[in-house]
Amino acid sequence: MIIVMKGTATETDLQRVIQTVEELGYQPHVIRGTQRSVIGAIGDERGKARLQSLEAMPGVESVVPILQPFKLASREFKPTRTVVKVRDVEIGGDRVVVMAGPCSVENEDQILETARAVKEAGATILRGGAFKPRTSPYAFQGLGEEGLRLLAAAREETGLAIVTEVLKSEDVDMVAEIADMIQIGARNVQNFALLKRVGEVGKPVLLKRGMATTIQEFLMAAEYVLSEGTYDVVLCERGIRTFETATRFTLDLNAVPVLKKHSHLPVIVDPSHGTGHWEYVTPMAKAAIACGADGLMVEVHIRPEMAMSDGVQSLKPATFRRLMQEIAPFVEAAGRKL
Amino acid sequence: MIIVMKGTATETDLQRVIQTVEELGYQPHVIRGTQRSVIGAIGDERGKARLQSLEAMPGVESVVPILQPFKLASREFKPTRTVVKVRDVEIGGDRVVVMAGPCSVENEDQILETARAVKEAGATILRGGAFKPRTSPYAFQGLGEEGLRLLAAAREETGLAIVTEVLKSEDVDMVAEIADMIQIGARNVQNFALLKRVGEVGKPVLLKRGMATTIQEFLMAAEYVLSEGTYDVVLCERGIRTFETATRFTLDLNAVPVLKKHSHLPVIVDPSHGTGHWEYVTPMAKAAIACGADGLMVEVHIRPEMAMSDGVQSLKPATFRRLMQEIAPFVEAAGRKL
Amino acid sequence: MIIVMKGTATETDLQRVIQTVEELGYQPHVIRGTQRSVIGAIGDERGKARLQSLEAMPGVESVVPILQPFKLASREFKPTRTVVKVRDVEIGGDRVVVMAGPCSVENEDQILETARAVKEAGATILRGGAFKPRTSPYAFQGLGEEGLRLLAAAREETGLAIVTEVLKSEDVDMVAEIADMIQIGARNVQNFALLKRVGEVGKPVLLKRGMATTIQEFLMAAEYVLSEGTYDVVLCERGIRTFETATRFTLDLNAVPVLKKHSHLPVIVDPSHGTGHWEYVTPMAKAAIACGADGLMVEVHIRPEMAMSDGVQSLKPATFRRLMQEIAPFVEAAGRKL
Amino acid sequence: MIIVMKGTATETDLQRVIQTVEELGYQPHVIRGTQRSVIGAIGDERGKARLQSLEAMPGVESVVPILQPFKLASREFKPTRTVVKVRDVEIGGDRVVVMAGPCSVENEDQILETARAVKEAGATILRGGAFKPRTSPYAFQGLGEEGLRLLAAAREETGLAIVTEVLKSEDVDMVAEIADMIQIGARNVQNFALLKRVGEVGKPVLLKRGMATTIQEFLMAAEYVLSEGTYDVVLCERGIRTFETATRFTLDLNAVPVLKKHSHLPVIVDPSHGTGHWEYVTPMAKAAIACGADGLMVEVHIRPEMAMSDGVQSLKPATFRRLMQEIAPFVEAAGRKL
Repeated sequence: MIIVMKGTATETDLQRVIQTVEELGYQPHVIRGTQRSVIGAIGDERGKARLQSLEAMPGVESVVPILQPFKLASREFKPTRTVVKVRDVEIGGDRVVVMAGPCSVENEDQILETARAVKEAGATILRGGAFKPRTSPYAFQGLGEEGLRLLAAAREETGLAIVTEVLKSEDVDMVAEIADMIQIGARNVQNFALLKRVGEVGKPVLLKRGMATTIQEFLMAAEYVLSEGTYDVVLCERGIRTFETATRFTLDLNAVPVLKKHSHLPVIVDPSHGTGHWEYVTPMAKAAIACGADGLMVEVHIRPEMAMSDGVQSLKPATFRRLMQEIAPFVEAAGRKL
Repeated sequence: MIIVMKGTATETDLQRVIQTVEELGYQPHVIRGTQRSVIGAIGDERGKARLQSLEAMPGVESVVPILQPFKLASREFKPTRTVVKVRDVEIGGDRVVVMAGPCSVENEDQILETARAVKEAGATILRGGAFKPRTSPYAFQGLGEEGLRLLAAAREETGLAIVTEVLKSEDVDMVAEIADMIQIGARNVQNFALLKRVGEVGKPVLLKRGMATTIQEFLMAAEYVLSEGTYDVVLCERGIRTFETATRFTLDLNAVPVLKKHSHLPVIVDPSHGTGHWEYVTPMAKAAIACGADGLMVEVHIRPEMAMSDGVQSLKPATFRRLMQEIAPFVEAAGRKL
Repeated sequence: MIIVMKGTATETDLQRVIQTVEELGYQPHVIRGTQRSVIGAIGDERGKARLQSLEAMPGVESVVPILQPFKLASREFKPTRTVVKVRDVEIGGDRVVVMAGPCSVENEDQILETARAVKEAGATILRGGAFKPRTSPYAFQGLGEEGLRLLAAAREETGLAIVTEVLKSEDVDMVAEIADMIQIGARNVQNFALLKRVGEVGKPVLLKRGMATTIQEFLMAAEYVLSEGTYDVVLCERGIRTFETATRFTLDLNAVPVLKKHSHLPVIVDPSHGTGHWEYVTPMAKAAIACGADGLMVEVHIRPEMAMSDGVQSLKPATFRRLMQEIAPFVEAAGRKL
Repeated sequence: MIIVMKGTATETDLQRVIQTVEELGYQPHVIRGTQRSVIGAIGDERGKARLQSLEAMPGVESVVPILQPFKLASREFKPTRTVVKVRDVEIGGDRVVVMAGPCSVENEDQILETARAVKEAGATILRGGAFKPRTSPYAFQGLGEEGLRLLAAAREETGLAIVTEVLKSEDVDMVAEIADMIQIGARNVQNFALLKRVGEVGKPVLLKRGMATTIQEFLMAAEYVLSEGTYDVVLCERGIRTFETATRFTLDLNAVPVLKKHSHLPVIVDPSHGTGHWEYVTPMAKAAIACGADGLMVEVHIRPEMAMSDGVQSLKPATFRRLMQEIAPFVEAAGRKL
């Protein structure tokens, strides 16, 4: 931590800060500059947000952290890449993994028909929401437990692994019993109670970045899960909120190399939510693979115009098949396999 | 809902859309323009996000909603302003209500000393976190139940009403038993399970806007609470995330008149989180009152530089006293009382 | 400047950075921490963006600037507040100055009628665009030189001072000859050639913040004008671009106390462009005054629904008169006069 | 244009709007809904921002434009893709074009050495700034005319075409005389005077998206150039401003498919400015090609740590050579050539 003093700070101000730095358990080191002094506070600052409060002291201009705040999620802690196994599917390994399926599980025909279609096209994990976080309390909220049962039936028939979202702690056990991978959605990325509860269960976790979550905060959210003992965490970029309205969100592919630089965890990309328009899904899927993503999450619906949710961004089975064909040469260019 | 067709849409495309609009229970009305056609879908579209999915149909360029999606929170539904009563304090009435206290309850001396100080300066509600949502799993997470007990003790001594945050459904009953007002924090504004659970309890709710929550989504979050039968909801603007880094967040005071235009619910402002720097709290508190806020939420700490959290944005008791004096003429200018 | 080394940096990496710091004319000062080393580079770093390039060296994690980059605009350079005189109107002194008028000068009747109305209501400076920056090349681009002539006629009749925008260097002399204050619009805040050219002329300058300009960049833009010898610069907050669409821009009133803290220049606020809706102009005008603004810029049009530009955010003369009445108590609460 | 009336609008309000719509030259068409009425205004609305001002009328809730405002830049106007020829290099055709070179031309050795290196690695256009837009007036502002002369010398020796930025109208002729392609930088994307002046000259134009420019505004900026008769315009995505600080800007690759959908103009990507860190340049270059970009603009410097500007994001010649090798399979996967 570096404490920058104001140009007008007095010697007394400086001494008081030095003393407080020592009280907090750090070793202060003063550099007296031509315009102002700075104090380096030596010691492991991670998890010690309290130093930041020194900005409230007289004469202090700002407090600048030096270390990244995450530990278990960092590449310094674990330099080798993590491979997360979901049933027999490995995420973060040689293969680019494609998860596909409808936004919501709506009924048996819909989920079975979709499951068969995405399996045939090459997906290895089936996505589908049984519990849906909806902006409106009047909108379809998912089939709940019945939705889980239908997902299990689809797995039974197709052999696809299942990822589905959990919205509250009380449902974690129920979801964990059926799902092969538990999803924490964008709106819950800083629902710390849920992160901890899911981390206790031990099932692989798919953690989606929130729409206003910085990459540092995203890794801190992963740290919550990891620190409960669940190391199988996959990060998912799904679009951030910006001023641009031509797309529903702004899919931030930069996050892929940035996350790969700072963390050992696998990273996948959801171009369906990220762009919000089915026409942009395939080009952005290709781009995600090109910049190093370990996988994709894609919404597929058998009749998008009648979807209970997110129809605009869903691909029809035939379009999804084409997506799988079109991404193939990019997967190969990335030195990987589908 | 207005469905805008592409310039290249065929008559068949148009007819199919018309038919689907009818299937979904709306009455279609076509306007044939010089460049393209548009279809007005007449019927109550609120809560019916499904029409949006028509964007997936061939020949459709975009689907534009006409009605705001909230009902119970809207001024159309209830034209008179709501006054929320928290013990004997009325929020949304003649008086500008000031809630003050530390970010976290840290120990008995700290909360009692702070409570006495803010009461003496004129605050009528004590804030203080027993359960803290922290970005880092290694940071202080609050005293929990013991914190609630200390808040109750502070109320006992000072007569101040208490507002405190709840993080998870399992804790709602425990918090509701002691708190006079339950706070839902910015990170949980779209934790729909928590919103519903809190709405069931019937205690007054303080709902904070999320850092990337649009005003429409914010009112939809309130709608979740209202639709469970709790009508005592106070909205709190506390800063949104933008590119600007000179302040921790960008306190969006525009939200005050916008919320007042669309909703009957009281609106307060938190300039402490909104700016993240104690020096900006007083000027922005004045501005909040000037643009119509019904109250303020201000962080006060007896020794900010040693605070377990958010020290930089906390006022010392003496500075808070000055804030109360300095806002007084603006409260009067606004035709209200403290 | 603080150079933070990576945890994996070698002693050789460190020595090379030290050597380069010296080559660039700074005195290096090393702090060896438990996790990594940091180097303080002592010397006046302002204007020396080159140190930032050290981030490209092996073993360097980041380079953190310590000093704010502006000089002439800073309060460290000039602790007393600047008062800018536009004809006989003082901006930054005891009085809150109100500039009002139409977005565009459209014709003689319109500008004269508006000038009389705003003068009568209490405005002291007339705004009006002769040269208009329009998003569309097909939109009305302003009356140009004829517009300037009409503004002069309005000044002649009413005695109001005139502020008007200049879009290109070639027009600066023509505008300067007639206008009492030259406006640089939001879209030109980083048109450095124009900033310099306007700075050479010596007339008072009204500099509007860009929609994506940080406060630091905004003060650097002012620095361009100041460094050409024009010290009469007034800063104007007019809304930034965020994800929120309920307002046209997000008027960032936080900028007022932040600018006041870092700079001696006067600060005014434009709630018309900042919100984009006439209904929000008056509440935000009050808020601007409450948080310390030295003045307002307000759009007034005699028939907004027929305006050539920006009708939605324009006040009618009667509404403007009411705004002037309604802000009066807030001006007084702020210890100032109209 | 669709005019949405308020639920509380009276019949008189409605009739007045209808009358005004007619006065403005449109044909009104009323749909009376269950909750409110809407009026479709039929006629070519492009370039007629004036309809928007109807929002100021009593009883009007909002005015919703239906048509995109650009004409010449749109695919509706010109369905076939435009190929821009810069000397003998075709942008928008089969080949992915790579422009590379230093941020600033610093001296003869630097530009010649860099030109040779990027040519050898496979670039076909040399970039380099002679006139530099710098945030600080104290920073290096470019070599000016001497810089142009050095670029010409580099072309002479290597045969590379030259693209360089122009900052003001007065310099356009001078730059046009030497450059093969004129660049308009991000900060000038809405400097409409400069756009028009450059459009008059007829040289190919490289137009960079501003950091807060929506895609619609970006195409309107292109429209300014096109409407002056210059059809050879290449669009360049270079990062937008968001809350994320892990990258300097947020490179918005979504813009590539969105621009391709709406416009016939070629689109290239600048991952150097877009990310601000050399380590992220290569992955994002691959992603740009994968989602359909027609080319790249990459900063290369022979000694980044000593660069006068933007060293952090510049590649060394060896790294650039590696980039060219690494993108090759992605270019092929995209069905194109280098």
